[in-house]
Amino acid sequence: MKVINGNEIANKIKEEVKNIIRNKNLKLTLATILIGDNESSKLYVNLKEKACKEVGINVEKIEFPENVNDEIVIDKIKELNKKYKNILVQLPLPQNLNREKILDAIEYEKDIDGLTSTSLGKLINKEEENAPCTVKAVIYVLEENNINLRGKNVVLVGHGNVGKPLAIMLLNRDATLNICNEFTKNLKEHTLNGDILISCTGVPSLIKKDMVKDDAIVIDVGISKKNDKVIGDVDDAVKEKASLICPVPGGIGPLTIAMLLKRLVK
Amino acid sequence: MKVINGNEIANKIKEEVKNIIRNKNLKLTLATILIGDNESSKLYVNLKEKACKEVGINVEKIEFPENVNDEIVIDKIKELNKKYKNILVQLPLPQNLNREKILDAIEYEKDIDGLTSTSLGKLINKEEENAPCTVKAVIYVLEENNINLRGKNVVLVGHGNVGKPLAIMLLNRDATLNICNEFTKNLKEHTLNGDILISCTGVPSLIKKDMVKDDAIVIDVGISKKNDKVIGDVDDAVKEKASLICPVPGGIGPLTIAMLLKRLVK
Repeated sequence: MKVINGNEIANKIKEEVKNIIRNKNLKLTLATILIGDNESSKLYVNLKEKACKEVGINVEKIEFPENVNDEIVIDKIKELNKKYKNILVQLPLPQNLNREKILDAIEYEKDIDGLTSTSLGKLINKEEENAPCTVKAVIYVLEENNINLRGKNVVLVGHGNVGKPLAIMLLNRDATLNICNEFTKNLKEHTLNGDILISCTGVPSLIKKDMVKDDAIVIDVGISKKNDKVIGDVDDAVKEKASLICPVPGGIGPLTIAMLLKRLVK
Repeated sequence: MKVINGNEIANKIKEEVKNIIRNKNLKLTLATILIGDNESSKLYVNLKEKACKEVGINVEKIEFPENVNDEIVIDKIKELNKKYKNILVQLPLPQNLNREKILDAIEYEKDIDGLTSTSLGKLINKEEENAPCTVKAVIYVLEENNINLRGKNVVLVGHGNVGKPLAIMLLNRDATLNICNEFTKNLKEHTLNGDILISCTGVPSLIKKDMVKDDAIVIDVGISKKNDKVIGDVDDAVKEKASLICPVPGGIGPLTIAMLLKRLVK
């Protein structure tokens, strides 16, 4: 059984990116927008900023208070569109803001996180350059491990902001896809069919050992917290049954940031 | 067993649209672009133009020869964006043209057919106003027949230009979704699980009676031709097993045009 070490792979990618920047003497800047006081938003944007600095990418930080309105943020993004090539709005946003309107103010070419409507829509036409970084990380793990998706039964549990674009990219690779959610009757019957099982629900330890096919490839994309400890969707005991597992923590999380860096030097 | 009469429903919708246009005294124009000599493209655009005229919508027809290039078409679309509120490029396009670039030249608000990247991407965020008309037609049939998708097993065969956006809209309604393609091993095992079975492959009579669950709801979106006769993906004998069937011809086809008219008066 193989366990993906996301941190190790992410560090390798970081080194590659660092070398590209040094060798080509690239001057890159990422403009980040953080709004409000959400602890996750702060954590994520800090991790991205830290990673950028480590590889030699400049970061221009813009912060807004919790009570800012859509218009002010959108005006700022329009200004940034003129000045910068790479723009990122950290999610989640405060409840009073319109997530889609704000994201869609970012020009397609500058949408480094792949979350604008245009970037998402282009996935349907197999233009995947601006795929969401989390989705790219999942595909990266599969492709780096030479897992050909064509004709494979892939079970995807959860179809939120990650699940839906991920579904499109799995279909682009001709997977036979089974997508489940909280309303699915007898989830186990579905998950047991998965040659590859990907979970992105945020429900802690949802996927138990008896729900997984022998030798399945299991990728955990869920993140939740229990007593300040980060845990994933996939129960620890699944390791006894899977042939490859990409765990939480230390899997898709660090790889998502690595995908961001890769996109920045493209 | 109920058979959907797409022509009858489409005629009713046409009457409704006609009344709205008359009562509100709306002056609407649809600009259509037809490129080259493809017989299907000509047929489809003619059907749309005819339907528009019947309800009192003006049509501005633009035609280009087969050997036109992307730039000329895109320049024309930019010009149309300034003049018209509703623009449609008829597919399929000649092989030498870039389908995505041409479609994406249409401004989102004017994308009456729902095929630009932005319109497709917005589906992921549940903004479905500009969904592709064919996809809207499928959802319309389900919703008008009070079929609640939440928790239902929906099997979708084929994930091309219709299948992928349709998948997103089925997920938006919390279906448990199984998407198959030509590489799926043992297609029948999958289709037999479908409370609802939707086929959009263009493979004539692919779906046989023994592949369908008892009392399933079956929607045929496939179109192919055999000796000048239009046939669908679903074999005739499936009628003996389904509880509701939306057939080809006379199902999703006329409803797609009806959805276009509905969108035009929105």
